[in-house]
Amino acid sequence: MKRGVLIVLSGPSGVGKGTVRKALFEEPDIDFQYSISMTTRQPRSGEVNGEDYFFVTRDEFETEIANGDMLEYAEYVGNYYGTPKKFIDQTLAAGRDVLLEIDVQGALQVKEKMPEGAYIFLTPPDLAALKERLIGRGTEAMEVIDRRVSAATAEIRMMANYDYAVVNDEVSLAVNRIKDIIKVERLRVNRVLPEYIKMIEELEA
Amino acid sequence: MKRGVLIVLSGPSGVGKGTVRKALFEEPDIDFQYSISMTTRQPRSGEVNGEDYFFVTRDEFETEIANGDMLEYAEYVGNYYGTPKKFIDQTLAAGRDVLLEIDVQGALQVKEKMPEGAYIFLTPPDLAALKERLIGRGTEAMEVIDRRVSAATAEIRMMANYDYAVVNDEVSLAVNRIKDIIKVERLRVNRVLPEYIKMIEELEA
Repeated sequence: MKRGVLIVLSGPSGVGKGTVRKALFEEPDIDFQYSISMTTRQPRSGEVNGEDYFFVTRDEFETEIANGDMLEYAEYVGNYYGTPKKFIDQTLAAGRDVLLEIDVQGALQVKEKMPEGAYIFLTPPDLAALKERLIGRGTEAMEVIDRRVSAATAEIRMMANYDYAVVNDEVSLAVNRIKDIIKVERLRVNRVLPEYIKMIEELEA
Repeated sequence: MKRGVLIVLSGPSGVGKGTVRKALFEEPDIDFQYSISMTTRQPRSGEVNGEDYFFVTRDEFETEIANGDMLEYAEYVGNYYGTPKKFIDQTLAAGRDVLLEIDVQGALQVKEKMPEGAYIFLTPPDLAALKERLIGRGTEAMEVIDRRVSAATAEIRMMANYDYAVVNDEVSLAVNRIKDIIKVERLRVNRVLPEYIKMIEELEA
C-alpha cells in the first residue's frame, strides 16, 4: 500500500487559503481527505461528528494533548481546537492523501511532527508586485513604504519554512499549481524509495 | 533576472535516457539549453564547435580541470570528455533552463558542485514489476532471482542520491512527468526565496 501524501496549505491570514482549498475539493480529479479538526465546543445545528469536527470533552482533548496525539492545538474563547495526529496517520497509511489547511503558526507546529508533508505557502500576489507598485506610484510616504516592506519581510521569513511558494493571483491558477505539486510530490525519491526498499526486502526474504 | 533551473537526467545504462531527452526537446513548450560537452577528440564531419561539442586541445582541457571548471570529466580511448561549468552557469544566469543528460557516476560528481539542480533518476519499468514477474513465473532459478535482486538493490542505492524517480514505462509518459517536475521545481521555496529577498533588499536600499 502506497502511503498518501500530507499536503499542508498555509499562508498569511487574508491570502485566500479557504477559497483555494474549497476550489481544490471541487476539482473532479482530486480525491483528498480533508483533515478534520478536534474541538471541545458544542456542535452547531447540522454539524456531524467525524465530518465537520471530532467533538470531544475537555478531558478527552487534554488526554490527546498529554499523549502527544495532537499535531497542533490552540485554545480560543474557552474551547480547544486542534489537529489529531491519529486520523491523519490512519488516512495516509490507507493510501489516501490528506489536505490540511492551517495558519502559519499551526503549520510550523505540524511540520515539527510530520516533516514529510508537502508544505505549501500561499503568497498574496501583491508581494510579487510590491516593488513595481511602490516605485510606480512614486507618491508613497516613506513611512508607508517601510511598513509594507517590513510586512513583506516577515512573510518571506515564514515562507522559508515551506517547500513551495504558490502565488494566489487567481484561484484557478493557484489550484492548478497545487495539483501539479501533488502529482510531482509522488515522484520524489524520499517518497518512493521506501516502497522500492520494501519490495527488495520482500524479494530477499 | 530569474535564474534558470539545472535539470540533470540520469539513470542506469540502457534505461533510455537519450530517447527521453530527445523526446523532451521535441516538445513545443520546452525551451531548454542542452548542456554541451567539452572534448579533446577531433570534430567529425559536420560537427560544429559550440553546438555538438566544445572542441579544445588537451592543454586547454587540462587547464579547465586544474581551474576546477569541469563539473565532471572522464578519459575515454585517449580523449577527454567532460561538462564545463562556465557554460552552464552563464546559461542559468541568463534565465534559461539547462538539461544535462549524464550517466550515474557523472551525475553524482555534478551534484557535488551544483546541488541546486533537479536530479531526476530514470528507472526501468521492470524494476517496479520485478517482484510480480519473478514470483509470477515461479520457474526462475534461485541464482537468477538473486542476481536480479542484487542488480535492483544497486540501482535503488543510486536512486537515493536523486530528487525524483521517473519510471520510463512509456517515453511520452516519462516526458510528461519530467515536464511536471520542471514546472513544480520553479515553485520550490529554495528557488524563489532568493528573488523575494533580493526584491526586499532593493526596496530597503
